[in-house]
Amino acid sequence: MFIEGKNAVKEAIKAGLTINKLMVDNNLKNKKDDLLSFAYENKIKIEFLPKQILDKKTKTNHHQGFIADAVDFCYCNCQDILNKAKEKNEKPFIVILDGIEDPHNFGAIIRSCECAGVHGIIISKNRNVQVNETVIKTSTGAIANMLIARVTNIKDAIEELKQNDVWVYAAELGGQNIYKQKLDRNIAVVIGSEGFGIRPVVKSHCDGVITLPLKGQVNSLNASVACGIVVFEILRQREK
Amino acid sequence: MFIEGKNAVKEAIKAGLTINKLMVDNNLKNKKDDLLSFAYENKIKIEFLPKQILDKKTKTNHHQGFIADAVDFCYCNCQDILNKAKEKNEKPFIVILDGIEDPHNFGAIIRSCECAGVHGIIISKNRNVQVNETVIKTSTGAIANMLIARVTNIKDAIEELKQNDVWVYAAELGGQNIYKQKLDRNIAVVIGSEGFGIRPVVKSHCDGVITLPLKGQVNSLNASVACGIVVFEILRQREK
Repeated sequence: MFIEGKNAVKEAIKAGLTINKLMVDNNLKNKKDDLLSFAYENKIKIEFLPKQILDKKTKTNHHQGFIADAVDFCYCNCQDILNKAKEKNEKPFIVILDGIEDPHNFGAIIRSCECAGVHGIIISKNRNVQVNETVIKTSTGAIANMLIARVTNIKDAIEELKQNDVWVYAAELGGQNIYKQKLDRNIAVVIGSEGFGIRPVVKSHCDGVITLPLKGQVNSLNASVACGIVVFEILRQREK
Repeated sequence: MFIEGKNAVKEAIKAGLTINKLMVDNNLKNKKDDLLSFAYENKIKIEFLPKQILDKKTKTNHHQGFIADAVDFCYCNCQDILNKAKEKNEKPFIVILDGIEDPHNFGAIIRSCECAGVHGIIISKNRNVQVNETVIKTSTGAIANMLIARVTNIKDAIEELKQNDVWVYAAELGGQNIYKQKLDRNIAVVIGSEGFGIRPVVKSHCDGVITLPLKGQVNSLNASVACGIVVFEILRQREK
């Protein structure tokens, strides 16, 4: 995976991604540069190349003199997430994404989940945006502390969680008021896609539907904001 | 204000913005087009023009055959927001933005506030991103139901609210756990900018600082997500 541009490369290093080498514009060789110093400090292997070569390698046309050749993000499986909860001696706290398409939303969701102490996120191999450069950048380093499991079938993952005594809730309109539900238990919460919500077949495998009370007329929450509100309500109940 | 492109124009119409006229590419004149039908339904004045003229008028180079000439967004003042609460016979519920810079964040904040029943948002004339095309688009129509007051000085606005028996809280790190505070009162909450948070001078005028408990290591919430979580916690307490 190529990660390009000053900010993205910096976030990738901060996120602890394995970087095979960082290709840098020759012209920056003897200049004072924050990112270059940061890369040296982090013992990243640096290769100086003529600008023309970087211009050929770039996929975004915004390399700004920096292209990192990074190892693809390493996904885990559901059991790893359950094990993490066990190690921390905490009740499992998991988020399942049923088809988030916007990498900015995915990145923001990773940030919120990290802040709320979620043990891991489960995504679909085919329906969800995968961990890419934009996701890494938007997660502002949070991805380094988050387990992400990639599964072929969300339904099967839900069943696996249920067999491990985890309650699985769909977060969607038309369910029980979230503030009246007891959520301080082993829990996984499903967040639907931006355009289509949670698929009925996925919802049918859930133990219940939890809903944010909405007071407006338009009543359309951004998917990452909705996820943030839901995971913090679960955190509030866990902390009480 | 020019609003360009199919989606943005559609959202502007949905948001109830006054549109002087909608300029449309001549080539679409006799074609079936959803947006054109939608504009007719909403009795928007349509002017067909040669594509070359639209290409000259465009500021984004992405007009997709549609440029709306819309009346600038109409801001209100703090008193209008207080009056709205009074009319609805509700305790005032206000959000103050101290320097949000990203129009996507501003749009998402408007969405969340609309969903949570916030009566109005106060922004600074000079430090905050203003209502523009991207904000309107990102707010997905919510802006039509939201009062936005634009003030020269946030401090003065806070003092005005306090004189009207509104408690003003800064939402930031290092304060009282939000879940242990009594927030079901006349309330305004200040959200800081993405990069710099709330300015100390603004914070010094607030009645208190409320903080989300964070459980991660990176602990960096997106500004619009943080705002969403805070306004929904206030809503939860108001609804109880």
